Amino acid sequence: VAAPAEIADAAREFGWPLVLKARRNGYDGKGNATVRGAEDIAGAWEKLGAGRRELFVEQWCPFVKELAVIVTIGRDGSSAVYPVVETVQRDHICHRVFAPAPVAADLGGRAATLAQRTVAAVGGIGSFGVELFLTAEGTILVNELAPRVHNSGHYTIEACVCSQFENHVRAVLGWPLGATAMVAPAAVMVNLLGAGQGPGRPVGLEAALAVPGAHVHVYGKSVSAAGRKMGHVTALGATLDEARARAEQAAQHIRFGGNT
Amino acid sequence: VAAPAEIADAAREFGWPLVLKARRNGYDGKGNATVRGAEDIAGAWEKLGAGRRELFVEQWCPFVKELAVIVTIGRDGSSAVYPVVETVQRDHICHRVFAPAPVAADLGGRAATLAQRTVAAVGGIGSFGVELFLTAEGTILVNELAPRVHNSGHYTIEACVCSQFENHVRAVLGWPLGATAMVAPAAVMVNLLGAGQGPGRPVGLEAALAVPGAHVHVYGKSVSAAGRKMGHVTALGATLDEARARAEQAAQHIRFGGNT
Repeated sequence: VAAPAEIADAAREFGWPLVLKARRNGYDGKGNATVRGAEDIAGAWEKLGAGRRELFVEQWCPFVKELAVIVTIGRDGSSAVYPVVETVQRDHICHRVFAPAPVAADLGGRAATLAQRTVAAVGGIGSFGVELFLTAEGTILVNELAPRVHNSGHYTIEACVCSQFENHVRAVLGWPLGATAMVAPAAVMVNLLGAGQGPGRPVGLEAALAVPGAHVHVYGKSVSAAGRKMGHVTALGATLDEARARAEQAAQHIRFGGNT
Repeated sequence: VAAPAEIADAAREFGWPLVLKARRNGYDGKGNATVRGAEDIAGAWEKLGAGRRELFVEQWCPFVKELAVIVTIGRDGSSAVYPVVETVQRDHICHRVFAPAPVAADLGGRAATLAQRTVAAVGGIGSFGVELFLTAEGTILVNELAPRVHNSGHYTIEACVCSQFENHVRAVLGWPLGATAMVAPAAVMVNLLGAGQGPGRPVGLEAALAVPGAHVHVYGKSVSAAGRKMGHVTALGATLDEARARAEQAAQHIRFGGNT
């Protein structure tokens, strides 16, 4: 869309709400604006550059769950597909990842197949993150394709035989891809987001490290900002509940920036 | 011992064979010589520096198994004890590690306790490798104490919640120690030794990486030499047999140096 009027045109075709998106450099909700009705058009247009960025609109997708799949493509066209996970976003940012996704096996199978076909369609080598919407009717839609290792695959470091990172390197070097099977029945990843401006080193790290089975990752960014991804915690478990309890217990100790 | 005659004196007290050892800088069989009778004294004395190194003799220990335990000691005196493993040496060099050691639970418990006490006795902070002998009578003796991360603990990278390396860093930084529990029922590590002079990059790496579940580590040493530790392979499994089959299958593809 090249003008606010075209957003209104799109609404006549797709109905409200719409999502206005920048064509480039969007991530973590940046470059997106929800347009719930005609009264939101001017604000959304202004927020996304008032014509200085190329924009498009998308039909609103009422989903019941978000799923994600990491797929690695080798130089020889081989592919490695990781377990289907459920992602929970908060304020447009990945917040929790549940592996495997608590969905029926056939649904998981369809999601994996769709993810693999999506990545194959665009070509390329390495690890890709495929974000999916699951609708109330059981339809699976591709939401976004990230041509790189992805936040929804950080759990693979501890939870899978070969991580998305190792498989990315194997793929780029033309080496055989590693096994993507999980080494535990369940894994949960919790993102550590900045609470506000501050140093990149968190408070509470030692308390978090004292939680048995919690794998705490701090990215070493120089400064924290509100909502910035500063690290994550992964825990394995016999069940998703067990893994989640461990990960949350560790994550709640940690704080990056903001008032303490 | 300061002279060849003192080796003969020791034999009158301990019987043959004896082991002549350098007091410093011994590893992987270097700095050791087995003295099976009086006729071996001159050769062993010559091999270990002919008086230029400080030496001692040890009574021969007829063992039925070698066990090892990694123990990490934190700054606050806390300790983390890893599973008791069986190590199999070839030519005085660690060749295979089986985790957990296939021994009775009470024996494993005694080994762990002895290892923990041994490390506590010498003081120090960080990960230690404790090598043990198991005799036919079920006695456990301390063979060697390595004041550092140890080859017998490389399996912990993939097989334990927190590896000997991460726990070493946690210990030195004064952080809480991580959990040492295994994430799979069994793990086997196979050392990759140089077959002779050659580059540090092996042949057969890709074939090894194609073995599902095999974790191949190449140390990046610049050159290979006969018997030099150039890397290792670890595999997890539901049983030691399964883990061993995977690790051996990958390891047999790899060759460092020597005639191919």
